Amino acid sequence: MESFFTFLEKRVDDCSSLLCIGLDPHVNDLRTDGQPPIPTAEAARDFCFNLVKQTSRYAAAFKPNAAFFEVFGAKGWTALKQVIEAIQEESKRQGSLIPVILDAKRGDIASTAEAYAKSAFENLGVDCITLSPYLGKDSIEPFIQNSEKGVFLLCKTSNPGADDLQDVLVLDEERERTKEDDLFPLSSFIPLHIKVAQLAQQWNTLNNIGLVVGATYPETLARVREVAPGMWFLAPGVGAQGGELESALKAGLRKDGKGMLINVSRSIARVEKPGLAAAELRDEILGIRSSIVGNR
Amino acid sequence: MESFFTFLEKRVDDCSSLLCIGLDPHVNDLRTDGQPPIPTAEAARDFCFNLVKQTSRYAAAFKPNAAFFEVFGAKGWTALKQVIEAIQEESKRQGSLIPVILDAKRGDIASTAEAYAKSAFENLGVDCITLSPYLGKDSIEPFIQNSEKGVFLLCKTSNPGADDLQDVLVLDEERERTKEDDLFPLSSFIPLHIKVAQLAQQWNTLNNIGLVVGATYPETLARVREVAPGMWFLAPGVGAQGGELESALKAGLRKDGKGMLINVSRSIARVEKPGLAAAELRDEILGIRSSIVGNR
Repeated sequence: MESFFTFLEKRVDDCSSLLCIGLDPHVNDLRTDGQPPIPTAEAARDFCFNLVKQTSRYAAAFKPNAAFFEVFGAKGWTALKQVIEAIQEESKRQGSLIPVILDAKRGDIASTAEAYAKSAFENLGVDCITLSPYLGKDSIEPFIQNSEKGVFLLCKTSNPGADDLQDVLVLDEERERTKEDDLFPLSSFIPLHIKVAQLAQQWNTLNNIGLVVGATYPETLARVREVAPGMWFLAPGVGAQGGELESALKAGLRKDGKGMLINVSRSIARVEKPGLAAAELRDEILGIRSSIVGNR
Repeated sequence: MESFFTFLEKRVDDCSSLLCIGLDPHVNDLRTDGQPPIPTAEAARDFCFNLVKQTSRYAAAFKPNAAFFEVFGAKGWTALKQVIEAIQEESKRQGSLIPVILDAKRGDIASTAEAYAKSAFENLGVDCITLSPYLGKDSIEPFIQNSEKGVFLLCKTSNPGADDLQDVLVLDEERERTKEDDLFPLSSFIPLHIKVAQLAQQWNTLNNIGLVVGATYPETLARVREVAPGMWFLAPGVGAQGGELESALKAGLRKDGKGMLINVSRSIARVEKPGLAAAELRDEILGIRSSIVGNR
């Protein structure tokens, strides 16, 4: 049975890349040199069309963020669908499926989650979606029933407020309890995001659940990798958010040199030649990966 | 300075009601007697128009769920805006602002959250939105900067999977540490949703943050009320989800007999006379409230 991550791995091989290109048409980016931004759905769409065209050879996946389309209402929704279709056209042209990950961070009770899943997978036609884990397994299930569609669950995000909740210390129920289980030493605790990784590992019976783990936290990447040895991570934070590429890859790559999508958005979208920037970053990642896998 | 919750309390007084009417046009509900469902954005819109018209006299607020519109793509987004406008028209007719709470459960890093906030508050024109707390304070801030707009943060939801994450035991940092703080007794722990309530209480400096707490958990409602004595709760789970109204109100109401919106969706939408059902439930809630506040 094919699963989302078998599709992704095939694409990673086809394009020799671990890059996920984020399509985040911030209003401020929708301008031509020296001109004020043009805040329209069409400008957002064209911004993404250009990025897709210039970077698709190096893209293991594309990740449009729903917010930057939703902000234009109905027209934005139409633009989002057109961008997804443009990626699918590019896949056909290359003869290699480029997975589309909708960055939507949805999370609702099961009957509502069904509608979100239908919206993403059937209507928009994406292959994968980002989800919040806060509502638990039944909020995830409508998205993972078909193994060919996948999800990335938020685990440890790369924003300043991530530690407010994701780092609180929780009791590790997977540890064996001692006889004196009425008192717990600090070693009984794990950060909440590790608990999320444990749950995701349990739930991932069809090989279609991955985790969002910020590239800005090598120690966290390493710890999540211990909990989920085979799982794919989507790692934002390189570039504009300041992650250190080498330490992130060392900590997060699987033994086979895969298992990690490095997401980049602004650092590629805001340069004069996005295709060149993507190619260079792709090659930098491959170089680091070779030295890591070679040394293992 | 006016805040979202001063608007809500005014409406609660104007209509003598604590009812929040959920607008959840599930595809299966979009049918006339004996006919197959008509899965179109227009049918979803008309379903909501009818509910708004029939129940608005008893509605302290309306809560459209974004998923059931999003599932129709661009047309669904147009329908959602029309439903929100219909509620605003009804507000004008009654001379009393009926707040609209967009049930969207969004949650993203700050620059993305800004786009979601603009989409909800400026483009759609709602007054309040539901949010996930998982990404922490900076993911909430773009939504609470204007005190006249509000948020309900997910605290304890009413679905079966809620305990997967929301009930894990976390170290209570608000407790005073003993000298032997290398060992922690079970009394040092609180469920994660209580931690969320503590954070929300800290962040609520402009009186525009509330909490989603399922009406199905009276003990939880009571405990969250201790942590957040003045905060508004949005309580789903009455009716189709099986909450016990009286115990929920006893546990969750503030001392002034306010502080709790009882959300109902299917149990009102699926009966022949939604207006009558809303009126009866409104009165039942008022009756229970009188006996509770009278006994305090």
